[in-house]
Amino acid sequence: MASHSETALLDWRARCKAKKQQQLDAIPKAWHIDPPPEHLFNVQHVPYACGLLNPRELEITDTTDVHVLLAKLAAAEWSSVEVTTAFYKRAIVAQQLTNCLTEIFVERALQRAQEVDDYLRTTGKAMGPLHGLPISLKDQFKIKGLETTMGYASWIGQVADSDSVLTQILYECGAVPFVRTNVCQTLNWGETFNHVFGRTTNPWNRYLTAGGSSGGEGALVAMKGSPLGIGTDIGGSVRIPSAFCGLYTLRPSYERLPYCGAVNSQEGQESISSVLGPMTNSISGVKLFVKAVIDSKPWEKDPLVVRKEWSEKEYTLSEHGGGKKLCFAVMWDNGLLKPHPPLWRAMRMCKKALEAAGHTVIDWQPYRMMEIFKNAESIYCADAGHDFREVCREAGEPVIQTMSPETNKHEFALDEPLVQSVLGPEQKMLTAWELWQLHKEKRALRKAQLDHWQATRDTTGTGRPVDAIISPAAPYVAPPHGLNNDYFYTTFCNAMDYTTSVVPVTFVDEELDRPALPHEFYNRHDKANYELYDPKLFHGAPVGLQVIGRTQEEEAVIAMTEILDKALKTYDTAERE
Amino acid sequence: MASHSETALLDWRARCKAKKQQQLDAIPKAWHIDPPPEHLFNVQHVPYACGLLNPRELEITDTTDVHVLLAKLAAAEWSSVEVTTAFYKRAIVAQQLTNCLTEIFVERALQRAQEVDDYLRTTGKAMGPLHGLPISLKDQFKIKGLETTMGYASWIGQVADSDSVLTQILYECGAVPFVRTNVCQTLNWGETFNHVFGRTTNPWNRYLTAGGSSGGEGALVAMKGSPLGIGTDIGGSVRIPSAFCGLYTLRPSYERLPYCGAVNSQEGQESISSVLGPMTNSISGVKLFVKAVIDSKPWEKDPLVVRKEWSEKEYTLSEHGGGKKLCFAVMWDNGLLKPHPPLWRAMRMCKKALEAAGHTVIDWQPYRMMEIFKNAESIYCADAGHDFREVCREAGEPVIQTMSPETNKHEFALDEPLVQSVLGPEQKMLTAWELWQLHKEKRALRKAQLDHWQATRDTTGTGRPVDAIISPAAPYVAPPHGLNNDYFYTTFCNAMDYTTSVVPVTFVDEELDRPALPHEFYNRHDKANYELYDPKLFHGAPVGLQVIGRTQEEEAVIAMTEILDKALKTYDTAERE
Repeated sequence: MASHSETALLDWRARCKAKKQQQLDAIPKAWHIDPPPEHLFNVQHVPYACGLLNPRELEITDTTDVHVLLAKLAAAEWSSVEVTTAFYKRAIVAQQLTNCLTEIFVERALQRAQEVDDYLRTTGKAMGPLHGLPISLKDQFKIKGLETTMGYASWIGQVADSDSVLTQILYECGAVPFVRTNVCQTLNWGETFNHVFGRTTNPWNRYLTAGGSSGGEGALVAMKGSPLGIGTDIGGSVRIPSAFCGLYTLRPSYERLPYCGAVNSQEGQESISSVLGPMTNSISGVKLFVKAVIDSKPWEKDPLVVRKEWSEKEYTLSEHGGGKKLCFAVMWDNGLLKPHPPLWRAMRMCKKALEAAGHTVIDWQPYRMMEIFKNAESIYCADAGHDFREVCREAGEPVIQTMSPETNKHEFALDEPLVQSVLGPEQKMLTAWELWQLHKEKRALRKAQLDHWQATRDTTGTGRPVDAIISPAAPYVAPPHGLNNDYFYTTFCNAMDYTTSVVPVTFVDEELDRPALPHEFYNRHDKANYELYDPKLFHGAPVGLQVIGRTQEEEAVIAMTEILDKALKTYDTAERE
Repeated sequence: MASHSETALLDWRARCKAKKQQQLDAIPKAWHIDPPPEHLFNVQHVPYACGLLNPRELEITDTTDVHVLLAKLAAAEWSSVEVTTAFYKRAIVAQQLTNCLTEIFVERALQRAQEVDDYLRTTGKAMGPLHGLPISLKDQFKIKGLETTMGYASWIGQVADSDSVLTQILYECGAVPFVRTNVCQTLNWGETFNHVFGRTTNPWNRYLTAGGSSGGEGALVAMKGSPLGIGTDIGGSVRIPSAFCGLYTLRPSYERLPYCGAVNSQEGQESISSVLGPMTNSISGVKLFVKAVIDSKPWEKDPLVVRKEWSEKEYTLSEHGGGKKLCFAVMWDNGLLKPHPPLWRAMRMCKKALEAAGHTVIDWQPYRMMEIFKNAESIYCADAGHDFREVCREAGEPVIQTMSPETNKHEFALDEPLVQSVLGPEQKMLTAWELWQLHKEKRALRKAQLDHWQATRDTTGTGRPVDAIISPAAPYVAPPHGLNNDYFYTTFCNAMDYTTSVVPVTFVDEELDRPALPHEFYNRHDKANYELYDPKLFHGAPVGLQVIGRTQEEEAVIAMTEILDKALKTYDTAERE
């Protein structure tokens, strides 16, 4: 007879297996494809080769500019049913290649699309600013009547009795929530793996991670299986997968967009709040989503959302000299881990492109970064993992200790991530008073950083402080599974509450991105990171960068990202000519 | 030889005595008045009778409309030196009657006033929107070179090496910070008493409390010893003294105004944040201060401040039908403690005045109030008093257990405040995880309350939800010292983060405000409160009410308070005619 703990073990495994089978069963039989061999790492060509999507469906899903998609939908040039069908098919292809989905509900989504089409036909009007657009949601945003598992065995079978506020608003805006996407267990990793749905891989190279925790969105949107996905970010979780998968995203400031009603890890942790953001293949998708949600007056549904309308004034860069002559600063490295060569090339490209467009680019001086790192990590660890353990314990599921349990033996693997060597091997549960001391420290660091930024006024030549910082989102492009252990390039912005976008800049080129000469290493993690770089391994991986603005500068950061994006595209063209 | 603890005891007492003497020495000899006998309770006539202020100084200090004061200052009709001198003299009179001040620095303030006058004379321009205006500050707002004691023996001698952000902004706006005002030890009482400076009394009736924790401001501004004072509010601390002393105030939402650099109790407690607000004799003072501070772009100095410009659109009540026909709801009682008769009469006055002005007034239905009360109090007590004890321990000073140590034997005194009977006699230090559970509960309560408010749309007749709630700020007017034990009429708004003003409505009239018939009591505190009411005791005390709006509705709440204030004044006049 099995012991109690053995039964519990069997039980969570059996539950996960059943859930996974249920997911498989939700895929229409006709949509199964012959999967390419596992060692075929780049699978971006498969949607074109597999025969599931007809040419019109490929045309629709290849329309990466969300603005164009919406215009065609609103003009009834494309119906929502056909657009949703096309993206759904491609999403299912993506699922079979990268394992990016959680909930699949084709019929329900198509019914909704039909409803939207009917609305347009009968009223002659679009239902809202996102009329007919299929939108994928990270497995945190509840949809009434569907399970929200968030990668936890114990949450299998939890059917939502209400929509999250974001879902409600998407419906009001005319959108078609059509699929939900994979996460990592606990949401506290920069990769995507859990016991229920397994691992999501990067469609540019399945040997590499898609990033996380919104890695399902990362892989799905990179495969053009969704025109717009919604992720969340408490330490980089929309920016890391966006950078690793070649997408645009925005990490808004705390409470600008409505999180209410979404499930979460460490719910109630308000010291560094998780936020939600769009992940998409065009900067137009970022702007359209953010503006549509803010225009819906989310503060009437979510008590925490900042009562601040979308500001066209700020979008036209009223606080940044109208955007004609901006001064960007490049954070070439953060003083803890030096970025790999492709990141440096991407930053140089930005600098040249912006200068060619008439802007100024100076160097950013990192300031008190280790203190910020330590403070933020201490806050994340304030409950010493109690929340994670409790949720796992319910089903007897183990708390995952590595994102690569079966292959975590990469020769460059660090014996421990930076956070452990900074905080020590064991975190203890803090008291409320101890947490308040961390808040005091955090406030002082935010004040110091604000003053540091304001002081750049003397060096920009514009009369203003630096308009935005350009920075890596990680010290590497997508690494092999299990090796994304440093999140501080992104966490820095969560801790300071800086509005931050990610823009795709280029791809790793083994010819152009030769290994750098060894430098003086900041620490042993920096050394290990240096040794991890291998041009052949990373060849072809997307390279994205962050554009970092101030707290609650959503409008301005989107506008400045548009400026950078345009400059890069013009510069690319110019270089080629 | 004295034991260590005896020495420590002597030591903090000696330090307090020396500090108090230093304060006395800071008063110019010529400004000492012959104090009236202690049993003369209403001291509002003394500034006119004591002979210290000449007729012009009385005219200046009697100018309660801050808008008028600023116009005369900007036009050089009155110099800042004479205005500051006049208010300083009256402040010193107030100090000798009500013990409302902490730091007194006449020479420094007059130098600053001279600087402002010189600026106007040489440039022909006002220095800023608060040009020349003397402003009093609660003993939390640091002024470089002055001590910030905040009523703690252990903080005596702590000289600030920088200005708080608010002080900086006041200087930039041309204001003259001229005096600092008394608080209660720990800031966590609705009265004003500490071992360093002693007790502040209510100038309308010194037998009654001035309220707290910003009670120094309450008494000072009520004596017209300052045209505008700045207090702080985490549970009612600007609204309670304003209601008890007959002033206007605003409790803005979290982080709309800059708190950075001010000292505080329980610093780092971010679950229910303390905010700062103006206390003044005119609603114009409230608006001018809030607008001036927001127009200064405080987010460039305080990283926590919401990046939201002053909105004329919101001030003109764009979200409230333009303000022509508003629907107010009256919270006659909150279901925990029934207010005393003068509060009911004041609410009836508001209802009649607003209806006469063309608005609608309906009843507010309190909703889940006990849950909110319990959640908020649990948050305030999350460190089980550790912060207070540590600061007191440094000097060996005892933590104060009652606001009336020498006379706390009033026949109606409750044996314990409501909070103790709800939370139990002993609070324990919570863990970070336990605090997060309180946050989850708080968010759910805020969401429920938001939905409850939105649902009033069906009953207002305006097509909008209720525009604002009118409510008592306490279930009584200023009670005798030691008896203000219930703060939930105000704390409710801190917990929900509702923007809330206080408006003075009337005075207790022993003829009009007869005791009510006994009602069914909600609890034994409600019964004790009923028994506390005595028309003779309270006769002549000011009666103020709250105007409660939504989160981050500073502009709209100010505008709606103006509408109520005008309606009351018109109605008063109409009644008299």
